[in-house]
Amino acid sequence: MTRPKTQVDLERLLRGDRAALARAITLIESKRADHRQAARKLLDRVLPHTCKAVRVGVTGVPGVGKSTLIDVLGSDLTRQGHRLAVLAVDPSSTRTGGSILADKTRMARLAVDPNAFIRPSPSSGTLGGVAAKTRETMLLCEAAGFDVVLVETVGVGQSETAVADLTDFFLVLMLPGGGDELQGIKKGVLELADMIAVNKADGDGMKRAAAAAAEYRSALKILTPPSATWSPPVATVSGLANHGLDALWRTILDHREKLAATGELAAKRRRQDTRWMWALVDERLHARLSGDAAQRERVRRVEQAVAQGEISPTAGADELTALLGL
Amino acid sequence: MTRPKTQVDLERLLRGDRAALARAITLIESKRADHRQAARKLLDRVLPHTCKAVRVGVTGVPGVGKSTLIDVLGSDLTRQGHRLAVLAVDPSSTRTGGSILADKTRMARLAVDPNAFIRPSPSSGTLGGVAAKTRETMLLCEAAGFDVVLVETVGVGQSETAVADLTDFFLVLMLPGGGDELQGIKKGVLELADMIAVNKADGDGMKRAAAAAAEYRSALKILTPPSATWSPPVATVSGLANHGLDALWRTILDHREKLAATGELAAKRRRQDTRWMWALVDERLHARLSGDAAQRERVRRVEQAVAQGEISPTAGADELTALLGL
Repeated sequence: MTRPKTQVDLERLLRGDRAALARAITLIESKRADHRQAARKLLDRVLPHTCKAVRVGVTGVPGVGKSTLIDVLGSDLTRQGHRLAVLAVDPSSTRTGGSILADKTRMARLAVDPNAFIRPSPSSGTLGGVAAKTRETMLLCEAAGFDVVLVETVGVGQSETAVADLTDFFLVLMLPGGGDELQGIKKGVLELADMIAVNKADGDGMKRAAAAAAEYRSALKILTPPSATWSPPVATVSGLANHGLDALWRTILDHREKLAATGELAAKRRRQDTRWMWALVDERLHARLSGDAAQRERVRRVEQAVAQGEISPTAGADELTALLGL
Repeated sequence: MTRPKTQVDLERLLRGDRAALARAITLIESKRADHRQAARKLLDRVLPHTCKAVRVGVTGVPGVGKSTLIDVLGSDLTRQGHRLAVLAVDPSSTRTGGSILADKTRMARLAVDPNAFIRPSPSSGTLGGVAAKTRETMLLCEAAGFDVVLVETVGVGQSETAVADLTDFFLVLMLPGGGDELQGIKKGVLELADMIAVNKADGDGMKRAAAAAAEYRSALKILTPPSATWSPPVATVSGLANHGLDALWRTILDHREKLAATGELAAKRRRQDTRWMWALVDERLHARLSGDAAQRERVRRVEQAVAQGEISPTAGADELTALLGL
């Protein structure tokens, strides 16, 4: 007798049962209407058991060594008694068929660690959709007793913003660069960073990593820190050589402690929650505007007319609100 | 016989008549329903005569010398045959009763210059409202033959983003700072900057301004430029001593020429227009949700329940979309 997909054993999930967790995530990711409704009910029921984890976002270009760093740091954490979930946001994974993040094969140690749970990026298309599923998966992991959640992203389009908006602490990994060539930081990402870590500070890379860190550090000085409580530090680390990862984790805990003391952490999560709610409202609004082909065509024509300067944005907004029946 | 407020002589406006322009702006800023409708019609009629000006946004903290710089640069421009409009976005002006930007008394030369038109920030409350009025005022000024529009802001909240989204070129003014104390740049602002100019590079300030510029320059190096066509330069200027303002203007024209050649300028304006349209749709959605006191109270309660973690953002979004009848 197979259990219908829409039924998740909440007790088992709360006890940390991995099969129940996997089943719950499958339900969350399903597009079937009855599954979606069941998923919503499930989420409401797990809500009181969430919000307990340290939520960390990790970004960096392909090749920066995210997987190795997460594999090594994560193994240290589970050895210390933590239970770790590794999730991913990669809106490109379906389209390009490319890198599915949080891949078990790239995290050999965590893949066989009973206290680690790895889940690749959901492949639901839009960034908003992927981020929403990842957020719900994070809540399920928290309910299942995972006390550290790492969410990684490669930084396609606005995915860093989405991940930063899911997490408490946003870690930006950089490459040491070669000679004069310093790796550029995407501007929007600098704004989100709670810490910059130059990875691959091992062997020959040590000196170059230190030099790069010094440059990033002096550059960060010209920016007003987003909070009086926290100025993003710059460190050198090596995932491969397990260098600086304990200090990195202490930085994350230090950030957490300081922002919790001032109430900023709670405020940040509240802001993330309400912002997410409004994003969902927006998404539904857009979904409604693109409901059927004729509707989509009318929206496209209005957008085009505005872009071409044929009608004013105000007149365009009039037409769109009329389409919505508002 | 007084002409009814809702009637603007389009012919006179297009000939650059200042009284007709002032009347049109008053109409745009009015909140009366019949005025708003007349304003919308007027805007549709002037639309073919717009988009011709060089649109420049200027930001900097109070005391950085925005008014002096604009007064001196603007006078140079009118002397060269340009017609200049100076507008402002200051969402705080109504609430604090504080600095009304683009104040005639602070721009002594431009205030009496027949080829300059100064208009303080509209005082309609929300940033969205203020920015919308300023954008429409800009269009009217373009229709009236002003070929340079400067929009200044002090950078309250998100006002820099709003101004950058109105303009082609975003200029960030900085103070030279004293000794080791470099003035911090707000992170979000760095992302918007097409140029950083350290002002007050005169007399004693010269050396400090040059040192500050060097620091900003090396800091900008670590950022990936937003466009392959344009890397934001850092310069020293003095509004007071009229130093570097001609070079500044040449930089603005250079930016314009380069981005026009690649099509990026047209694409940027198209993007701004469609983004503005969607922002208007959003604003109306929110207006509808805050239509009456009972409705506002329900929205507030939903937001609070989500912020307190009593209901999930998804459940909150359900309630809000139900309120909207979507």
